[in-house]
Amino acid sequence: MKFIEKLHAASAKKRSWLCIGLDPDPARLSGRDILQFNTAIIEATADLVCAYKPNLAFYEALGRDGLSILTGTIDRIPGDIPVIADAKRGDIGNTAKAYASSLFDVLGADAATVSPYLGGDSIEPFTDYADKGVFILCRTSNPGSADFQNVTDFRGRHVYELVAEKAAAWNRNGNVGLVVGATYPEELKIVRGLCPGMPLLIPGIGAQGGDLEKTIRNGIDKNGDNAIINVSRQVIYAPGGDDFASAARTAAQKLRDDINMLIGKVRHG
Amino acid sequence: MKFIEKLHAASAKKRSWLCIGLDPDPARLSGRDILQFNTAIIEATADLVCAYKPNLAFYEALGRDGLSILTGTIDRIPGDIPVIADAKRGDIGNTAKAYASSLFDVLGADAATVSPYLGGDSIEPFTDYADKGVFILCRTSNPGSADFQNVTDFRGRHVYELVAEKAAAWNRNGNVGLVVGATYPEELKIVRGLCPGMPLLIPGIGAQGGDLEKTIRNGIDKNGDNAIINVSRQVIYAPGGDDFASAARTAAQKLRDDINMLIGKVRHG
Repeated sequence: MKFIEKLHAASAKKRSWLCIGLDPDPARLSGRDILQFNTAIIEATADLVCAYKPNLAFYEALGRDGLSILTGTIDRIPGDIPVIADAKRGDIGNTAKAYASSLFDVLGADAATVSPYLGGDSIEPFTDYADKGVFILCRTSNPGSADFQNVTDFRGRHVYELVAEKAAAWNRNGNVGLVVGATYPEELKIVRGLCPGMPLLIPGIGAQGGDLEKTIRNGIDKNGDNAIINVSRQVIYAPGGDDFASAARTAAQKLRDDINMLIGKVRHG
Repeated sequence: MKFIEKLHAASAKKRSWLCIGLDPDPARLSGRDILQFNTAIIEATADLVCAYKPNLAFYEALGRDGLSILTGTIDRIPGDIPVIADAKRGDIGNTAKAYASSLFDVLGADAATVSPYLGGDSIEPFTDYADKGVFILCRTSNPGSADFQNVTDFRGRHVYELVAEKAAAWNRNGNVGLVVGATYPEELKIVRGLCPGMPLLIPGIGAQGGDLEKTIRNGIDKNGDNAIINVSRQVIYAPGGDDFASAARTAAQKLRDDINMLIGKVRHG
């Protein structure tokens, strides 16, 4: 099954455009076993999400055990929920092939994030996996994102807009998406205009402070779909003490429902 | 010891600005054990190089054994030769910290490559390790590099020039370098002009076809230093059958000597 079909099936079944970022930080886990922590979060939220997104940095920082914890985590995710490997990889052709193989063949992820700085031949080895999703960084959620993403060319177009235009051109397998931060709702609107039907992976709600209503208004497509709202810390570290999984579920349910309410409001009101 | 001091000490001791890329590709190893292969390459070339550069993609693609092969390889590199972890990571602050910890604390690399697309706050967690080197992708060696790196701003400056300028501004710990491909010698000259004393990591000689003399002419600093010429495939897969390590040594020695001859020619002739 193609990634986009799996994503839409999960979204329809769970009535959700919420994606939970599985980013375990030992400093916030009070000594808990990380795989058990992730498993508890997944079991408590699997009926509320359209995807899970582990960020590889947090697993690589664990050293020797990181890869087995990551593969164990991916194994715990029910098969009908897509896994987006947030890796932001970007290297030249031969090496990009090795990265794509690592993420899609070794880890078995359904989709991955990639960085566009090296251009088309660094992306193609990923998009060549026609059944896998490829989310290209476009306008990221962090303060420094303007340093290069907002450089303006002689025709007044920003680099992030050029990335969105190229992404549309590179989408011959229908498996390309973009990463656009909720912290820049105006840029999100511009990107949605350039890529009307593309799935957008949108971090920046929650700990980073993005506005959910503006994000929904500017991020959804004409059917109210394809705005994947990723939240990590606000869900997985929701205050709840030993009952962290219930707290995560409560936070995820509120977000899922808020997103749905706002999609309805934007479309019909 | 700071990375730059370790690099210069190794370069002086080995009379070399050659860096060998340790990028094992199972398809080219005829069933050889990868750690044994890397060990043989290192033992055959350690007196000829200023650094080694393993590209993490090739280890990640090996799956479960990849990390132990990578750490085993790094363990085999003599302690006086710096290790540049070619990872091209780039993520937002909190996550960039985890990547920096993974490369510097877990792997123990002396330097790492990073991608600039996410801007200053994605680089700072790396440069905060004052004793480690941080090579920021600037103008890469691949054909697609022009897609975004050569976008021109309203004042006629290319994105890669803006990266070089920012890199100089971010260099308060004196540990920043740039990656510039040998396949674009004119751009290399411009970058050297913007960052006169910075170490440049220069891939693109060998399999990718960059011209060595132009690269030396445009890449060295005023003392004839700080142009780290990386070669991977041309050395580690030098034709030699079972005697691959001798063949690698012969190829490395010729490159080291050619580089030195050209540095002399450019400086004195």
